Amino acid sequence: MKNLSILEAARGARKASIEMASIQGSVKNNALKAVAALLNEKKEEIFKANSMDIQAAKESGVASPLLKRLKFDQAKLDGVLDGINTLTSLDDPSGMIKLAIQLDTGLDLYRVSCPIGVIGMIFESRPDALVQISTLCLKSGNAVLLKGGKEAFETNRILTRIIAEATAREGIPSNWIFNVETREEVAEMLAMDNEIDLLIPRGSNEFVRYIMDNSRIPVMGHADGICHTYIHKDADVDMAVSVAVDSKAQYVAVCNATETILMDADVAEKILPPLVHSLQGSGVHVKGCEKTRSIVDGLDSAAGEDWATEYLDMIVSIRIVNSMDDAIEHINRYGSGHTDAIITEDRSAAEFFMNRVDSANVFHNCSTRFSDGFRYGFGAEVGISTGKLHARGPVGLEGLMTYKYKLYGHGQIVADYASGKRKFTHKPIGKD
Amino acid sequence: MKNLSILEAARGARKASIEMASIQGSVKNNALKAVAALLNEKKEEIFKANSMDIQAAKESGVASPLLKRLKFDQAKLDGVLDGINTLTSLDDPSGMIKLAIQLDTGLDLYRVSCPIGVIGMIFESRPDALVQISTLCLKSGNAVLLKGGKEAFETNRILTRIIAEATAREGIPSNWIFNVETREEVAEMLAMDNEIDLLIPRGSNEFVRYIMDNSRIPVMGHADGICHTYIHKDADVDMAVSVAVDSKAQYVAVCNATETILMDADVAEKILPPLVHSLQGSGVHVKGCEKTRSIVDGLDSAAGEDWATEYLDMIVSIRIVNSMDDAIEHINRYGSGHTDAIITEDRSAAEFFMNRVDSANVFHNCSTRFSDGFRYGFGAEVGISTGKLHARGPVGLEGLMTYKYKLYGHGQIVADYASGKRKFTHKPIGKD
Repeated sequence: MKNLSILEAARGARKASIEMASIQGSVKNNALKAVAALLNEKKEEIFKANSMDIQAAKESGVASPLLKRLKFDQAKLDGVLDGINTLTSLDDPSGMIKLAIQLDTGLDLYRVSCPIGVIGMIFESRPDALVQISTLCLKSGNAVLLKGGKEAFETNRILTRIIAEATAREGIPSNWIFNVETREEVAEMLAMDNEIDLLIPRGSNEFVRYIMDNSRIPVMGHADGICHTYIHKDADVDMAVSVAVDSKAQYVAVCNATETILMDADVAEKILPPLVHSLQGSGVHVKGCEKTRSIVDGLDSAAGEDWATEYLDMIVSIRIVNSMDDAIEHINRYGSGHTDAIITEDRSAAEFFMNRVDSANVFHNCSTRFSDGFRYGFGAEVGISTGKLHARGPVGLEGLMTYKYKLYGHGQIVADYASGKRKFTHKPIGKD
Repeated sequence: MKNLSILEAARGARKASIEMASIQGSVKNNALKAVAALLNEKKEEIFKANSMDIQAAKESGVASPLLKRLKFDQAKLDGVLDGINTLTSLDDPSGMIKLAIQLDTGLDLYRVSCPIGVIGMIFESRPDALVQISTLCLKSGNAVLLKGGKEAFETNRILTRIIAEATAREGIPSNWIFNVETREEVAEMLAMDNEIDLLIPRGSNEFVRYIMDNSRIPVMGHADGICHTYIHKDADVDMAVSVAVDSKAQYVAVCNATETILMDADVAEKILPPLVHSLQGSGVHVKGCEKTRSIVDGLDSAAGEDWATEYLDMIVSIRIVNSMDDAIEHINRYGSGHTDAIITEDRSAAEFFMNRVDSANVFHNCSTRFSDGFRYGFGAEVGISTGKLHARGPVGLEGLMTYKYKLYGHGQIVADYASGKRKFTHKPIGKD
């Protein structure tokens, strides 16, 4: 019976998604504004529900970092309201003509963007993620099934109810959003590959990895973020130090922070001392390969496991390589395909590196910390994907879109083209 | 050991793919020309190898349609040579700038197309498919692992050897193409989700369905093609009959042929008699729902199972619906998300239908048979995809491409933007 209810919800969501695919952008924007207004109006109820979750979590001995993520207070509310406000200002991603070809006179083909359908969102403790993702889905015209952590039960319930209520008033089909509340494991949603078109997981690396490894539904996201900064033999010393320190230390608990610094042997003696000094001055614990430790005294050893570790902490490993080829091989072997940078004054070396490093983001002479949807100017960020299909790197609203081909004719039949009676013109149609 | 050899091949292919990502378009074109020349030069050897396969297949009692697909003769060779010729004339799909944004002065972001990496191709008996797909991979800069049917063992082996030899001469890394020859089941390739980025299956519906259901690797393709032509109450009678007959009968053994004709009840009495007459005149066996049979005598009954059947034959089912909503619901329920058409003089009804039918191709007043990469003017066709992620509908070379973000800086660090010392500009960069 419980299985059935999720299945029913998924079918309801599919039906709603069909309607949502043809809802005007202005209607979706009004619904977004209504969501923001109602969240604000009912904030005391939300905070109260959240304090019940917090209380229960405390009683069951939940650790403090999780409590912090679980918290939904005025600051978290302000964050999601800002996000909704920005979303409202963006163009409608649906109905955009991506390609227009006249196949023949009066036979016009258009590739038009449209929502994917039903998005499954699975997240750990942060209830603000529920509002972020569901409003991204609303803006893009997708239906969404949400499965949050059980420790945020009350908060997720009231947030979903408020969003559903506000959007229903504005004419969005009521089944477009559903909060999966049963106690069955995440596994249940992961198996719904006929009902859910795309999964978006939010949570720890292990959590995302688990979802990627246990579902046939396409997943948009990234598990690890093992990023590299490679200091090439023709690097400017000051720039190399400054960018490497920023890449590691500007904010460490994020996927685009550098975990390993690679360096050409030719310049190691020149660059290592100021680099290590500067990293240590920023509070970074520096580990090094054997060669590194032969140049700078007193460092802990980095080896095998370190190259494959995402520290997410004030720790960095340094490895000296014999050539750019070795650096590229190291990155393609140990990296996550997320973000990798080269520091060099040699533009053609940079181009070689950027073409051969098989990562979503390849940078020349700047910090790996720039790889982010907001810094890229996308307005909204659905997530960062290390997958190579559909969407790669920082993903904006277009990651929630697919397209369909619309062909407008006047009774044309294929027999006439097969017989040679008519011929295709295949002319691009001017955009209007 | 046999497992290892496929794994080794996959790793070799991965390595080759890294090199291929930065090979110039002219080099790839020269390699394509060399493939065509060497296939032609060695055609007698190919035909001889193929006749061994044919002989063995005959001896083991293989059925005649399979023998026909297995055959690789002058006509098949001409076909693949034509395909290679067209590929050579197309623009290089790699290295195209898809988006260009100045994040700040001297900090320029580009989204650049690049090959996906390693493609796994699994096909049944047709050896010409091997040449088609591998040359598409070459043009797009992808490495490819091929697993063909064992009945084409000799043909596949020599074709792969010729392609590898011709491309190696032109500087393409020798591991870019590998013919998996061991007798292990397809299951082995399906499990290599760390080694293969995308699977392209070619074969019967059951074969493609099996692959889709048994791998976590993304699959580009389609299993069924249950397409519909819906005759709306405001349809022009002559056009409706002409388009419906072409959609069904112009060529039946293909995925974009119409299998079910839906018709509004209001016009059934007017349109059914000439439609059935014309279908039967073209040799089509017509089955109808109860209402259809109450208007036209002597038809076989169509029901439940028929709506979900891809006949791929001179058979059509007709169902009378009460409204456009019913037609849309029928299509979204029983269809394959492939190609569905509406015949109507009412443009806004057509738009409603095209927005709500959740299919890759939605047509107004023309034959479903138009959904095809060549008819769409794509120059090459990788396949038709009914999946909604990455590529949908007829897929040209761009279906074998992904993109990466390249960010070019001058030592910029995120700390300066976080502190407010510098601000992002986010200006589009003019294409040059």
